Amino acid sequence: MSGEAAFHSRLRAMVTEPGARGLMDDAALFPTEGEQLVLTSDTMVEGVHYRPDDPPETVGWKLAAVNLSDLAAKGAFPRACLLNHALTGQPKWDEGFLDGLGRAMKSYGMPLIGGDTVALPPGTPRVSSLTAIGSVPSGQRVPGRNGARPGDRLYVTGPVGDSGAGLALLAEGKAEPPELVRAYRVPVPHLAIGQTQGPEAHAMMDVSDGLLIDAARLAATSGVGIQIVDIPLSPQFVALHGDSVEARLRAATSGDDYVLLVVLPNDRVTPAGLIPIGHCRQGEGLALRLDGRAVPLPARLGYEHGAG
Amino acid sequence: MSGEAAFHSRLRAMVTEPGARGLMDDAALFPTEGEQLVLTSDTMVEGVHYRPDDPPETVGWKLAAVNLSDLAAKGAFPRACLLNHALTGQPKWDEGFLDGLGRAMKSYGMPLIGGDTVALPPGTPRVSSLTAIGSVPSGQRVPGRNGARPGDRLYVTGPVGDSGAGLALLAEGKAEPPELVRAYRVPVPHLAIGQTQGPEAHAMMDVSDGLLIDAARLAATSGVGIQIVDIPLSPQFVALHGDSVEARLRAATSGDDYVLLVVLPNDRVTPAGLIPIGHCRQGEGLALRLDGRAVPLPARLGYEHGAG
Repeated sequence: MSGEAAFHSRLRAMVTEPGARGLMDDAALFPTEGEQLVLTSDTMVEGVHYRPDDPPETVGWKLAAVNLSDLAAKGAFPRACLLNHALTGQPKWDEGFLDGLGRAMKSYGMPLIGGDTVALPPGTPRVSSLTAIGSVPSGQRVPGRNGARPGDRLYVTGPVGDSGAGLALLAEGKAEPPELVRAYRVPVPHLAIGQTQGPEAHAMMDVSDGLLIDAARLAATSGVGIQIVDIPLSPQFVALHGDSVEARLRAATSGDDYVLLVVLPNDRVTPAGLIPIGHCRQGEGLALRLDGRAVPLPARLGYEHGAG
Repeated sequence: MSGEAAFHSRLRAMVTEPGARGLMDDAALFPTEGEQLVLTSDTMVEGVHYRPDDPPETVGWKLAAVNLSDLAAKGAFPRACLLNHALTGQPKWDEGFLDGLGRAMKSYGMPLIGGDTVALPPGTPRVSSLTAIGSVPSGQRVPGRNGARPGDRLYVTGPVGDSGAGLALLAEGKAEPPELVRAYRVPVPHLAIGQTQGPEAHAMMDVSDGLLIDAARLAATSGVGIQIVDIPLSPQFVALHGDSVEARLRAATSGDDYVLLVVLPNDRVTPAGLIPIGHCRQGEGLALRLDGRAVPLPARLGYEHGAG
């Protein structure tokens, strides 16, 4: 059996949905019941979105996780996905990739229903896209980046900076502490808290390019100003980099965090699992105030790649 | 404005659906009303699915068309699409690509609602995926490859071989006759006839890898034998290659036709636009009978790339 045939055979073995028709048809069927669907599609390129030496299992997991994080930001429940994968002639790698992807799909209840496999010439960077479909009950609000109002409070669902710190460790040839490397390679989508807060949030998005740049985007789309007064860090991050203003700025601009940025009305008691980091106000743009002092924004707020 | 920023700006200008949120959000919203959705996703790679010297407008068109052809094979109405596109540092090319894609989206009523853009290192083959969403009214049958029964009649919705002949001409540095080159570069998805025949067909699929290999797949999935007694050719194809058995086998194995293969019960009068080419029978496998004589199957029935 060729590498490509073996890959298809593994793919088909992952399929359980009748609408997928065993991946043997031109298209997948997806029944609906009047719900709102949420659609997102993210591509990962070797050397751009992950390191060539990242274990393939983690690459597969991460491709699912980054898409699931987009569903989480809408308060959506995962329903199905389609995979577009380019084979580059290393069956073992592709096998590991599918194992990791399959584990994430299973963990979060997102069955594979279709997609496409193509072959790229050996030596070209690997490229894989996943299209994720989620659903939100009919009539329920689906938060965007545009609903924040002056006075609203701003929260995140976890510390930032771990992933960027993990990537920096890998670039130096280190793999310790494992929590930081894991944050980079095996991010966890914040689905449950997204589903809880989605109907209540004035605005919500996931932090993929850096807390500062993503907060600035939310502010711009909503037409408000945002003041950030706290940048929460993990104990592992603090042990490595400390918690100086510089360290916190590093954490807030490194990206790949996949925590949610949640905007709630200011009369709400802080829900469990949310860390308050600031508030929205009249005006525009982003302002930082740490340890009671105004802090100038760094020149680079985060990553500026890609759309969507 | 960088090439990437210019590309995003053009992409956003193509967006009309409110659910797309101007491509500025994490995900697109897609309201449903209890219909059945049909989902398909096809990737095209430069040098594999199109020639590096194909005009970018035709590459964009073709990416839409091959996905629309999958929707046609389900009798579905196009509803929306997501684009995953890799930029390779040639803004003019990407602009042309978007123009062609946009023209197809407009022609067939398939608005862009999301996706992703990534940058590949210059010199790597271009890769683009489109995920197309179609719908079929609730309760209506959606044909697959698996419903053909002995006695059913087999039809195609147009001649085969033009696209393969066009590709061969291009490989020889020729561009005449233009109809054949056009069949390769600017295929037309057979949506209307698919929508008409979808509810009636016992089985339906589009011919993308070659009439013989696709008919053999339909036979295998349905558990029937198929006898093909005619391979319809266009006047342009016949003018170039004649209509010998050899020429017809060439046409039936060259692929990229994007006509539909339609299986109907044998008590139906042949509907307008369908060309009868054979029938289904007890047994398995494919048999060819041309000009009243059994013809051995060629060693190669068509393309065997990719799944989905």
